[in-house]
Amino acid sequence: MELRTVLVVGTGLIGTSAALALRKRGVRVLLADRDPGAVRLARELGAGEEWQAGEDQSEGPAEQVDLAVIAVPPAHVASELLELQRIGAARFYTDVASVKVEPLHRAAQLGCDLGSYVASHPLAGREKSGPGAARADLFLGRPWALCPTEDSGTEAKAAVLRLIELCGANAVEVSAADHDRAVAVVSHAPHVAASAVAARLTDATDVALGLAGQGVRDVTRIAGSDPGLWLGILSGNAAPVAEVLEAVAADLAEAAGALRALAEGDGTATGEITQLLKRGVAGHDRIPGKHGGPAAPYSVVQVVIGDRPGQLARLFQVCDEVGVNVEDVRLEHAPGLPLGIAELSVQPDAIPTLTDALRERGWQVP
Amino acid sequence: MELRTVLVVGTGLIGTSAALALRKRGVRVLLADRDPGAVRLARELGAGEEWQAGEDQSEGPAEQVDLAVIAVPPAHVASELLELQRIGAARFYTDVASVKVEPLHRAAQLGCDLGSYVASHPLAGREKSGPGAARADLFLGRPWALCPTEDSGTEAKAAVLRLIELCGANAVEVSAADHDRAVAVVSHAPHVAASAVAARLTDATDVALGLAGQGVRDVTRIAGSDPGLWLGILSGNAAPVAEVLEAVAADLAEAAGALRALAEGDGTATGEITQLLKRGVAGHDRIPGKHGGPAAPYSVVQVVIGDRPGQLARLFQVCDEVGVNVEDVRLEHAPGLPLGIAELSVQPDAIPTLTDALRERGWQVP
Repeated sequence: MELRTVLVVGTGLIGTSAALALRKRGVRVLLADRDPGAVRLARELGAGEEWQAGEDQSEGPAEQVDLAVIAVPPAHVASELLELQRIGAARFYTDVASVKVEPLHRAAQLGCDLGSYVASHPLAGREKSGPGAARADLFLGRPWALCPTEDSGTEAKAAVLRLIELCGANAVEVSAADHDRAVAVVSHAPHVAASAVAARLTDATDVALGLAGQGVRDVTRIAGSDPGLWLGILSGNAAPVAEVLEAVAADLAEAAGALRALAEGDGTATGEITQLLKRGVAGHDRIPGKHGGPAAPYSVVQVVIGDRPGQLARLFQVCDEVGVNVEDVRLEHAPGLPLGIAELSVQPDAIPTLTDALRERGWQVP
Repeated sequence: MELRTVLVVGTGLIGTSAALALRKRGVRVLLADRDPGAVRLARELGAGEEWQAGEDQSEGPAEQVDLAVIAVPPAHVASELLELQRIGAARFYTDVASVKVEPLHRAAQLGCDLGSYVASHPLAGREKSGPGAARADLFLGRPWALCPTEDSGTEAKAAVLRLIELCGANAVEVSAADHDRAVAVVSHAPHVAASAVAARLTDATDVALGLAGQGVRDVTRIAGSDPGLWLGILSGNAAPVAEVLEAVAADLAEAAGALRALAEGDGTATGEITQLLKRGVAGHDRIPGKHGGPAAPYSVVQVVIGDRPGQLARLFQVCDEVGVNVEDVRLEHAPGLPLGIAELSVQPDAIPTLTDALRERGWQVP
């Protein structure tokens, strides 16, 4: 299945990123958005040409594209699909919304043609939104869920698989219901939990915030995202997210109850807390590591660096000289001081070589 | 107040790190731990000499040190203090436990001398524990809470302030009760929330885990820590943590209820969800940024890199050549592919220079 021309409806972060990826692979891309500014920006970024649906839309578009990618909020997917199908905009259709059951249900209700449509969802995103945050490699190596139904045509599915391939993502075929339950537990409910933890900081004293470390920063990072966007996602996956949140809330209420009992001298309550902490470790350990595989056994070398130009260049120069591949790097800045620690993840057997080489050249390796 | 000799009781991560910091500043350090292997390892790391308490401990130690740093789990702080004071081990005493009210209360109950003792708590830690994870700069620029009471002697407080200074940390004077409420909200409760979110992953399907992105990884990172260590911390701060967890659980239960109502067609329930998401953003935005000040307005340049030795060296070399200081770096690996994105945080006005320079040299800057 070759895709010569693709229509992207909705030039936000996901739509524009897909358009950029397709353009890189030589696909002709047409762009549409209710917001003319968003289309213009996407076009200026090289994402494609503006879609000319014709003056009188009832006459249909000037041409029929191979595939239309509907990249609008979940609540608008079905009506957009209906409208595009009505004017015969494309041979095949997909959407990239974060939830799948509700839009599919609504599309069936509205009488959309479900043979030419296969729902999908790339698992990629950023804290930033809009076409300006788009990038061609957003989907590179990421999972992209594909949710065919028994109505889906073979060619429609092939067209969406080709889209996923052109974007460099990995297709994961899953039913819409399984998809929605999965993202509830690995994405949507964690988001709400992060918001609830961050919400507690609104009442905290300045002294308390001054004592904040990396842990609370990590837990609450995603709580900084756009509430409007997330309301749409959560509303579209309401029941599965509610189920996970009920379980999380129950665990936290139970932990709180056990801590209350402990505070009143009931030492037997520690069992429940230990159980929750241990289940947390077990769940944490199930998350796949880098490159999609299990967590690799990298070791970390810590190097003290100054907050000046050139320090990192010199540091990585040493790694290069001694042939050590840095798998990951993390800078830990010391709050209040122009000093920090670079944590370099390397293969365990490279540790002595790298440590010696760095120390020889005067680096402080604690 | 000069500290010539310091006794560190408990050579875990915090105790050994303090010992290493003190050694660097020329202080003589004596080490003690119930586990002879932990003392030996700390000594081999250069953290100091083994403490000789004398064969018959009732005769007292061979010498009285200036300050004893009690770095044992919260539940053992008071009994350790009592024992050390009984043999006259030090002129002054502090502890570094993560909770303050309970150990102070217990010390008073046991009849410890509260004039020579000032409780404290460095806000620094790592996911790893034990002397092997220690480093001299663990406390550099970090807050170190100091909790004097009306019983605390002036000299004792000066001795602990000097310890904090020698470790390169910033002293934050706060009452024990305020300290415990603060760490409940910025550290202890977020930890339990992360565990509860991670615990949901134990029941998730492999497909669901395959759809996990950076968000859930960040939210659950700290849930990988040692349950035994955290049970001790949570038990020692039970009531304040319970209070925060009750509020988080209530918010999540309310969000779940609103989502259930939405799923059943009650559109008015969105207000509660939006409110929680917005409170989350407000709380998130209160966390101080890098270097202890407000979040700095850095901009991010993304560069596509290969997973090969030398790539980062060449990348940072370019930054150096054009005089651009990289404030932070984050590697995003594409799961399943030997490619990634380096996200370089730089001053906004350096963006054009850096982007042009990188593109000229053939780097892919999306």
